[in-house]
Amino acid sequence: MPPANSGAAALGLGIALAFCSTAGAAAQTAPLSAQESDPRVMGWMQGFPPPPDKLITQPDSNYFSFPKLRWSVCHLREFLPTEEIGRGLGAPVPLDYPTHAEFADLRARIDALTFMPTNGTEEMTWEASLYANYTDGMLIIHKGEVVYERYFGCLEEGGKHAIMSMTKSITGLLGEILVAEGVLDDTLLVRDIVPEIGDSAFATATVRQVMDMTTGVRYSENYSDPNADIWLYSRAASPLPKPEGYRGPDGYWEYLQQVKPEGNHGDAFHYKTINSDMLGWVISRVSGKAVTDLASERLWRPMGAEQDAYQTVDAKGVPFAGGGMTAGLRDLGRLGLLMLNEGAINGERLFPAAVVQKIRAGGDPSKFKGFPTIPNGSYTSQWWVFHNDHGAFAARGVHGQTIYIDPVAQMVLVRLASYPRAQNGFIDPTSLPAYQAVAEFLMAR
Amino acid sequence: MPPANSGAAALGLGIALAFCSTAGAAAQTAPLSAQESDPRVMGWMQGFPPPPDKLITQPDSNYFSFPKLRWSVCHLREFLPTEEIGRGLGAPVPLDYPTHAEFADLRARIDALTFMPTNGTEEMTWEASLYANYTDGMLIIHKGEVVYERYFGCLEEGGKHAIMSMTKSITGLLGEILVAEGVLDDTLLVRDIVPEIGDSAFATATVRQVMDMTTGVRYSENYSDPNADIWLYSRAASPLPKPEGYRGPDGYWEYLQQVKPEGNHGDAFHYKTINSDMLGWVISRVSGKAVTDLASERLWRPMGAEQDAYQTVDAKGVPFAGGGMTAGLRDLGRLGLLMLNEGAINGERLFPAAVVQKIRAGGDPSKFKGFPTIPNGSYTSQWWVFHNDHGAFAARGVHGQTIYIDPVAQMVLVRLASYPRAQNGFIDPTSLPAYQAVAEFLMAR
Repeated sequence: MPPANSGAAALGLGIALAFCSTAGAAAQTAPLSAQESDPRVMGWMQGFPPPPDKLITQPDSNYFSFPKLRWSVCHLREFLPTEEIGRGLGAPVPLDYPTHAEFADLRARIDALTFMPTNGTEEMTWEASLYANYTDGMLIIHKGEVVYERYFGCLEEGGKHAIMSMTKSITGLLGEILVAEGVLDDTLLVRDIVPEIGDSAFATATVRQVMDMTTGVRYSENYSDPNADIWLYSRAASPLPKPEGYRGPDGYWEYLQQVKPEGNHGDAFHYKTINSDMLGWVISRVSGKAVTDLASERLWRPMGAEQDAYQTVDAKGVPFAGGGMTAGLRDLGRLGLLMLNEGAINGERLFPAAVVQKIRAGGDPSKFKGFPTIPNGSYTSQWWVFHNDHGAFAARGVHGQTIYIDPVAQMVLVRLASYPRAQNGFIDPTSLPAYQAVAEFLMAR
Repeated sequence: MPPANSGAAALGLGIALAFCSTAGAAAQTAPLSAQESDPRVMGWMQGFPPPPDKLITQPDSNYFSFPKLRWSVCHLREFLPTEEIGRGLGAPVPLDYPTHAEFADLRARIDALTFMPTNGTEEMTWEASLYANYTDGMLIIHKGEVVYERYFGCLEEGGKHAIMSMTKSITGLLGEILVAEGVLDDTLLVRDIVPEIGDSAFATATVRQVMDMTTGVRYSENYSDPNADIWLYSRAASPLPKPEGYRGPDGYWEYLQQVKPEGNHGDAFHYKTINSDMLGWVISRVSGKAVTDLASERLWRPMGAEQDAYQTVDAKGVPFAGGGMTAGLRDLGRLGLLMLNEGAINGERLFPAAVVQKIRAGGDPSKFKGFPTIPNGSYTSQWWVFHNDHGAFAARGVHGQTIYIDPVAQMVLVRLASYPRAQNGFIDPTSLPAYQAVAEFLMAR
């Protein structure tokens, strides 16, 4: 059973029951290595038809457990209904690259970088860390130029990858943009904006508490308890027809209407995905748009994205604001550039600089506990803030996905990954010091 | 109950049972007009959340019946798992347009064109025909230039629309490309290429008979018969978990393995969607690629598409080769240009001219019966050939969607539509003569 505040919570369970089997199943067995579990090596879904033991199907309900997970993270739309986050028509705005020779040289030098894993005793190379962390895609942008880009596993250039809880940060960014523009008042109570929230515990939380996940709401993820909230949430959120006789909430928003209190609003940070979906509802109510459409209009289209992204939906078409997005590596790089450059990209301003300044400033670290790999961190507007020397902050997904922004190094790093266990606590020791090492290398070059 | 060979057959039922309720339900009631049933007027899915009577959900199983159909044709991915037909990265190749003033003038003149509906007594304007036929999008390209482009109902510029049985023509085109390149021998029997077809009626059909739908295979669409093949096909094809105790075929390809004979191969044309899915299997076996990937590699990417397209899949990830595609209006225009120009677009040749010449030549009209609105037609390689003075041929979908290519007029016409009844027999009388009228107008300008 995963500990409280674990990555399992971060998984943003709620798409379907399939998502729930991950942590438990993977924790039981010693996983195959990244190379052994490469979907091409495993032979998943190869052949017409694939042999029965190489099929990954949604009705099997284990398509999101390791090692199938390593294929499924690139193919989520083939299992579930989704909504598009359109890049619009016309030409994308290309990212800047150095010459081929420079690019190859940088790759070799970065691959050879060494760093000491947190609490480790032996140095590890950058390249070894990519395999240790089951990396599927890595993009590094320094001073506006792509200095490193590699694809592994199921991900190819032009492919897309599930970003899980990084979705929250995009929801949070949209919320913060609306706050900066005066469309959303973050001091209001949720019930002032969404009266149908009724007597849910969310009713009396402020929008700001929802954005920062300091609400006092009950949401248990004890997998061994059949009455745990996570199971109810998953059943509510599933886009599949409900079982006969089902009387529970239907969809993310009906679930939110019946959330019970636990503790007091504002007391402490508790990483609970339902806050992100509550924020999604608030955003749609004040903007009159689905979060998918808003992400397209405010981010994907104006930033010159190369690929449409998409988001899974519940049975009523509500996008999963807490974890449902899939996107391309480079477009996540563009999003990182937008954050690094405080709302500007390609010479255009997409939103006020105050949006990023607010996020970067972070929250109160004294309210932030339970994440030993981020000892001085905080969580603000659905972004992780490290409060380190480089002022780094990040979007983070539960299988090691990240947009990591280092303002001091002027570096954006995007990693897509499919780590076997749904817990960043296992991934951070060989990731965060690696990011710091590459940042220092880039600053010195 | 719809007549044999009706548009209901053309619907390519098989995605889910939802698709099966269309023809029956719509035929019972006098439908709302195009303007009355406009999804924006109906208020479908407006609000966060929409009121219960404005919700369109997949578990309701009637999302594809009129008037909900008029919203759902633009939102199929929100109900069902899908696979991408990627346009690739980089910039699309823009279509050519006249000046704004010329474009506006052409639109006014085309809208005012009049024509006599087949068997009609009163002339109708072109613009009136768009509403009579519940048009959602209309694009006309003449001599390589877009001379008319309008969007209605659920479709906006940058949107996408289900093309239903037009999918067959894309499957057929891919098959014909492989034949021309020597990868697929259309004289072989299906069992020579797909031995697992076993003792299915398809086993002894040639690939050519499958491509031209002259196989002798049983496939009944008698909706009042609970044992009709259409129901079995729908259950097999549904991507949703199978009901408890289900023992039937799982997926398109398992269904094809148990098809019974009816008549003799080669005797006559019978419009049966299962041929298209059989062709899809043959194509994947010889090419080693899913039809979605092949469509991306051979068509969408090299033709400079502006938008990704997508295709619904069964529970094993097999794309619905007989009806599952959704695409953008302009990209279907590009596909029409490829056909008009015998495999060339943007100055590049994508496949041999013989591919289109073969399709345009058509089949034996004496084997083609049961389509009174296409009296001298034939069906070749999954394309409809009119054998008229202009040498026109077309891809056709069951709610009035079409790519209509008129080689004499050098015209490509794409219509996306959501006609209430799933029968082109009702749509053709106010469509085919309108296409002829606009072709003659363009030739004379």
